[in-house]
Amino acid sequence: MLDQTFVSQKAAIDPDNFALANCLRALAIDAVNAANSGHPGAPMGMADAATVLFSKHLKFDASAPDWPDRDRFVLSNGHASMLLYGLLHLTGYEDMTIEQIRNFRQWGAITAGHPEWGHAKGIETTTGPLGQGIATAVGMALAERAMAGEFPGLVDHRTWVMLGDGCLQEGIGQEAISLAGHLGLGKLNVLYDDNDITIDGPTSVSFSENVPARLEACGWHVIRCDGHDAAALDKAMTEAKAETSRPTLIAMKTVIGFGAPNRAGTAKAHGSPLGEEEGALAKAALGWDAAPFDIPADLADAWKAIGARGAQARAEWEDALAASNHADTFRSRIAGELPEGYEAAVTEARKALFDAPQKVATRKASQIALESLTAAVPAMIGGSADLTGSNLTRVPAVDTTFTAETPGRYIGYGVREFGMAAAMNGLALHGGLRPYGGTFLVFSDYARNAIRLSALMGLGVTYVMTHDSIGLGEDGPTHQPIEHLASLRAIPNLNVFRPADAVETLEAWDLALRTPGTPALMALSRQGVPQLREAGDENLTARGGYVIRSYGDRRDVTLLATGTEVSLAVEAAEALHADGVGVAVVSMPCWELFDAQPEAYKAEVLGDAPRIAVEAASPFGWTRYVATEDDVIGLRDFGASAPAERLYDELGITRDAIVTKARVMIAD
Amino acid sequence: MLDQTFVSQKAAIDPDNFALANCLRALAIDAVNAANSGHPGAPMGMADAATVLFSKHLKFDASAPDWPDRDRFVLSNGHASMLLYGLLHLTGYEDMTIEQIRNFRQWGAITAGHPEWGHAKGIETTTGPLGQGIATAVGMALAERAMAGEFPGLVDHRTWVMLGDGCLQEGIGQEAISLAGHLGLGKLNVLYDDNDITIDGPTSVSFSENVPARLEACGWHVIRCDGHDAAALDKAMTEAKAETSRPTLIAMKTVIGFGAPNRAGTAKAHGSPLGEEEGALAKAALGWDAAPFDIPADLADAWKAIGARGAQARAEWEDALAASNHADTFRSRIAGELPEGYEAAVTEARKALFDAPQKVATRKASQIALESLTAAVPAMIGGSADLTGSNLTRVPAVDTTFTAETPGRYIGYGVREFGMAAAMNGLALHGGLRPYGGTFLVFSDYARNAIRLSALMGLGVTYVMTHDSIGLGEDGPTHQPIEHLASLRAIPNLNVFRPADAVETLEAWDLALRTPGTPALMALSRQGVPQLREAGDENLTARGGYVIRSYGDRRDVTLLATGTEVSLAVEAAEALHADGVGVAVVSMPCWELFDAQPEAYKAEVLGDAPRIAVEAASPFGWTRYVATEDDVIGLRDFGASAPAERLYDELGITRDAIVTKARVMIAD
Repeated sequence: MLDQTFVSQKAAIDPDNFALANCLRALAIDAVNAANSGHPGAPMGMADAATVLFSKHLKFDASAPDWPDRDRFVLSNGHASMLLYGLLHLTGYEDMTIEQIRNFRQWGAITAGHPEWGHAKGIETTTGPLGQGIATAVGMALAERAMAGEFPGLVDHRTWVMLGDGCLQEGIGQEAISLAGHLGLGKLNVLYDDNDITIDGPTSVSFSENVPARLEACGWHVIRCDGHDAAALDKAMTEAKAETSRPTLIAMKTVIGFGAPNRAGTAKAHGSPLGEEEGALAKAALGWDAAPFDIPADLADAWKAIGARGAQARAEWEDALAASNHADTFRSRIAGELPEGYEAAVTEARKALFDAPQKVATRKASQIALESLTAAVPAMIGGSADLTGSNLTRVPAVDTTFTAETPGRYIGYGVREFGMAAAMNGLALHGGLRPYGGTFLVFSDYARNAIRLSALMGLGVTYVMTHDSIGLGEDGPTHQPIEHLASLRAIPNLNVFRPADAVETLEAWDLALRTPGTPALMALSRQGVPQLREAGDENLTARGGYVIRSYGDRRDVTLLATGTEVSLAVEAAEALHADGVGVAVVSMPCWELFDAQPEAYKAEVLGDAPRIAVEAASPFGWTRYVATEDDVIGLRDFGASAPAERLYDELGITRDAIVTKARVMIAD
Repeated sequence: MLDQTFVSQKAAIDPDNFALANCLRALAIDAVNAANSGHPGAPMGMADAATVLFSKHLKFDASAPDWPDRDRFVLSNGHASMLLYGLLHLTGYEDMTIEQIRNFRQWGAITAGHPEWGHAKGIETTTGPLGQGIATAVGMALAERAMAGEFPGLVDHRTWVMLGDGCLQEGIGQEAISLAGHLGLGKLNVLYDDNDITIDGPTSVSFSENVPARLEACGWHVIRCDGHDAAALDKAMTEAKAETSRPTLIAMKTVIGFGAPNRAGTAKAHGSPLGEEEGALAKAALGWDAAPFDIPADLADAWKAIGARGAQARAEWEDALAASNHADTFRSRIAGELPEGYEAAVTEARKALFDAPQKVATRKASQIALESLTAAVPAMIGGSADLTGSNLTRVPAVDTTFTAETPGRYIGYGVREFGMAAAMNGLALHGGLRPYGGTFLVFSDYARNAIRLSALMGLGVTYVMTHDSIGLGEDGPTHQPIEHLASLRAIPNLNVFRPADAVETLEAWDLALRTPGTPALMALSRQGVPQLREAGDENLTARGGYVIRSYGDRRDVTLLATGTEVSLAVEAAEALHADGVGVAVVSMPCWELFDAQPEAYKAEVLGDAPRIAVEAASPFGWTRYVATEDDVIGLRDFGASAPAERLYDELGITRDAIVTKARVMIAD
C-alpha cells in the first residue's frame, strides 16, 4: 500500500506542478481503463517530470508543431504513450482531441498503443521497441548539430528523451549512449524513469548496474534527483541545459503508478489497467475529483498557456528565417526536396558510365555513384559501422568527420549497426538530411528492427549493405548472407535493391533519393562484375525488373537473376544461344518496384517460356516468379570459407549449372 | 615504425613465454599470407596473453577435447581465428594438423575464416559476429553454475574469453556484461585486447569510453595490465581466479600486429595479410628464423607439454566420475539424451489434452506442455527476456530463480533478447542442458543473428515467441509481427513451428526436444483457439503439414493454414461444405518438416484442387504451396492498434473472406 503521506508530501513540494501532473495521471488512468488495455504506471510515475519539462524547459509551440527549430521530445519507453497523448492534448495540439484520447488503442484512432510517427503532430518518432527511442534521439541530436553547422542562427534546439530501465537494458541503448558520449552531444538530455520496476518484477531480478556510473564512464554528465520534486527537476533540467559538451542523464527516482494506493511501486502498475476500483482510489489519493476524461477549466487553461509558451520564440525564429539569406535553401531542405542540379548530376554520372564502362564490384559502383550524388545533394550524410573501407561509403563531398568538436558529413558509428540504423532514423526524422550508412549485409540482422522502423515510418534512409553473398569468400558462413535478401524483401515498404552493374547501382541510388517515403537497402557485391548496360536514358531499375538481354527471335527459356548473378545468366544465355536456344535474361534489381508495375508489363517481361531464377541466396520467395523452388539456382544451406570463385563452383552457382537446367527444362 | 627496442624489451621480460608466443605469431603470419586473406594483427597482439593462459591457467587436455569439465575458451573476436588454430595445433589437438593450418580459409579445410563450431575440437563456439562470443560465454558460465549445482564434484570449471573493442561496442556485449555482473558469474574471466585500433582507424574515431569503469559499474572485477608482460598477465589471471563472486575483466594494453615493424599499432595490421616483405621484417624483429609453417623442435615440444598439462587432472576427474553415484545420469545428460520416462510423460500429456480439451491461446498450451516436459526433462532450463507473464515460460518444475547466490532452472534475462539468445547458445554448447527462452515474436528481430547462429551450429535451443500476429491487438504495429514468419522460415536449419492448438503445441515441443541438432522456434498466440485435435497417437506435427479436416467425398478446394488461422479455415470449410463444396483443411505447423516429407505424401496432402493459404502474416514465401500470392489471405502491410477481433475484421482475415475467395476459385 502506498503511503498516502508520501503522496501529500510530494504534493506539498509544488502544488501547482502536482495539480498539472495529475491531469496527465487522470487521463492515463481513464484512457487505459476505457481501452481495458495499456500501461498506466509509467505515465503516472513520469507525470511530474513531464510537467516540469513542458512547462519550463521544452521549446515548442503547440500551434506550430512543425516548427523546424522546436526541441524534439522522444518518449523512448513508448508503452507510456498515454503520457505523450495527454501532453499533446492538454497543451493544445490540434489533432489530439479528447475524442482521440477516449479512443485510445481503438481502430482508426491516432492514439495507438505505442506512439506512431505520422499519426499525430508532436509524435516525433515511433517508439515501443525498447532502446530505439534513445538511439533515434541520438540521430536527432546529430542532425541538429549538422544542420546548425550549415544554418547558423536557424538551428539551435535540444533533444529531450524520457526512458525507462528497458531502454537501458537493451544493447542498443548502450550503443546510443556510447556514441552520444563519444560525440559529446551536449544538447541531448535524457530523463531516466528510475522506478525499480520491470515487467517481471523489481528490476533487481535482472538489473543491478550502477546506471549513473556506467553513463559517466561513457562520457555523460549525470544528475540524480527525486522524480516527483518539481523544484529538483527544474534545477536538474536547468543544469542539463547549462552543460554543452556532454549529454546529460537526469536519473530520477520515481514511483511507478504514483498515486495508486495498492499498485504504486509494483510491477502490477506496469502493463495492466488499474481498473475501476484502484483507479478511483488513485484519484482520491491524488485529490482528483473530476469526471473521467474531464479536466477542470483552470488546469485546462494553465496547460493551454504552457502550449503557447513558445509562440513568441517561434515568431522570432520565423522572422529570423525570413531575414536569412539561406531561407529558401533551408525551407527546401526541410521539405526534403532534391536540389536544383540534381537531375543534371545523375545524367552526367550516367553518361560517364556509358563513356567509360566500369567493370567493378557494385560496392565500388556505389562509391562512384555517391561521388556524384553527395556532391549534388548537400542533405546527404554518410557513415558506416566501422567498415568504411569495405562499404566504400566515404567519398570526397562527405569527407569531413563528424566529431565532438565539429559536425561533419561522415559519421563513424563504430561497431554499432543497430545504433547506426536507429540514429539514421533520427537523422531522417529531424528534417533536412538524407542519411545513409553501411555495414555487411549479413549484419543487417543486428540492425533489423530499426530497418523495420524505417519502413514502418516510411523514412528516407538508405542502407548500404555490402558483401552481399558467398562472393565475399574466405570470411565464411558467419559473414555470408543466405536468407537475408528473402527476409528483407518480406518487410513491407522497404525497397531492396540488388543491382547487377554500375548503371543499375546508380539508378538504385537515384531511386532511393527520389523516394523519401520508402527506405532503400542496397545489397552490393564485394566481387567485380562487368557493366552490362551500355546506353539509354531510362532508369530501368525503376521498373524493378526488365529484359536486359534477349537472344533469338523466340523465347525458349527466361533467366531471372539479380546482382552479380545477372552477368552469370548472360554468360549462360550466350552459351545457350550458341546452341540455337532463344533466351531472355531478366534483371530484377528490385522486386518491390517490379511488383508495382502494370500486369501487362510484368507478363511481358516474365514471358510464357519456362523460367529459371539465379541468385546466390536462399530460394525462399522466388516462387513468386518461378514455378517451384527447384527452378531456382540458389543456396539451400549456409555457405563456407574459401575463395569466392571456388565457392560458386562448389555450391553450384555456375554458368554450366544454368545451361544444364535450361536444357532440361526446354526438353521437358 | 615500431620501436624495435620495444620488442626486445618485451622479450626480455619473459623470453620463454615470448618464444612460445612467437610460434603463434609466425603461424598467423604464414597462414594469412598463404591464404592472402585474414587478420594477422589480433593473433600477433594477443599471442603473449594466450600463451600465458594456455601454459599456466586454462584447464584442458588436448588429448581429450571433450572432457566435460574442461575450462571453456571462447575467442569472441573471431577474426583472430589463426590464434585459436595455432593454439590447437601447437598443443596437439589431433585434428588441427599443420596441413589444416596451411589450408587456412580454403575449401574443405577446418580452418575457416572465422572459427566454426563442429569443424574441430577445441572450437567451443562459432564466433565472428561481434559481441556474440562473450554473450555465448555468459551462457556457458551459467551452464557451469547450473550443472555444478546438480552435479557437485563433477563440474567446476571456468570460462575464459578473449575479445576486442568490437565486442565491447556492440550492444549485445553490454547485455552480456550486464547480465554476467548481475548474476555474479565469478568463473567468467575475460581478456580484453585493448589495442586502440579498429577497422576504421584508431578506436578514438568512434569509441572513447572508460571501459574498465563501465564494467565496474556493471559489477565486474577489473584488472589492468600490460598484455605483453607474461608475469603481469600471470598475476592478473591468478587474481581473476581468486575472485569468485564477480566476473573479471583483464584489460590488457596490447599492440596490434606486435612485431611487424611498419604495421604494428595501426589499422593496417587488422584485416590484411602482412605480405611477404613485412612478414619477413616482423619475423626478423621477433628473432624468428624458422621456415614458413615450421616450428623449431624445442618449442614444438614445449607446446606439446602444455597440451598435456591437464592430463592428470582429467584422469582424476574420470576417476571421480566413475566413483560418482550420478555417473550414468551425468553421462546421459552430457550426451544430450532424453531421460527415461520422457515418452511416458508425452503420452500422458497428450492423453490429458484428449480427455479434457483445452480452448486456450497457444502460449498457454505451451505452458501446459512445459509443465509436463520440464518435470520429465531435468536438462531443461527456462527463461524470458522480461516477459515471463506474457510468454508463460515459467512452470513449477523450473520455478527456481537463477540468482547470483544459487543456480536455478529459470533465468531472468532482463530486457535483453539478443543476449538471451546468445546465452542460450552457450547453455546448449556447454552440454547437459536444453535451454528455452521467451520474448514476443516481433522481437525475434533483436535476437536474429543469434538465432541464425543456433541454426548454423545446429543447437538444441528453443525460442518461445509469443504474441505471434495482429492477434495481440492493441499494442499496435511495433509489436505485431508481419514479415517475421517468412523471414525466420528463410533461415536454413531452423524449425519454425506455428501450432494450431494445444495438441500441435505439445507435439511441437516434443519435436523440439527430440531434434537437438535443429533449433526450434515456436510462434505462439496471445488469443485463444479451440482444440481441433481430439484423438490419435501419431505426432502429426512431425509431418509438418497434414489434413486436419476433410469435408465431402471430393476436393473442390484446399485451405492451407497455420496457427490461429487453422480454426478460422475450419469454420470457413464448414460453411463451404454446408453449400455442398468439398474442402480439405491442411494445418501446416512446420514448413521445414513438411518439405522433408516424401513427394507422394506432400502431393496427397496438397491435392490437385485449387489452394488458398490463410495466415495472419506476410504472404511472402507461400507461393511455395499456392499458385500466386493472390491466393493468400494474409497481410500486405503493417498492422494497427485495436482489439484483435476488430483487426482481423478490418484487415480481412475472416471466415467470410476465405469463403468468398474459395467460391471465386471454384467458379473459375
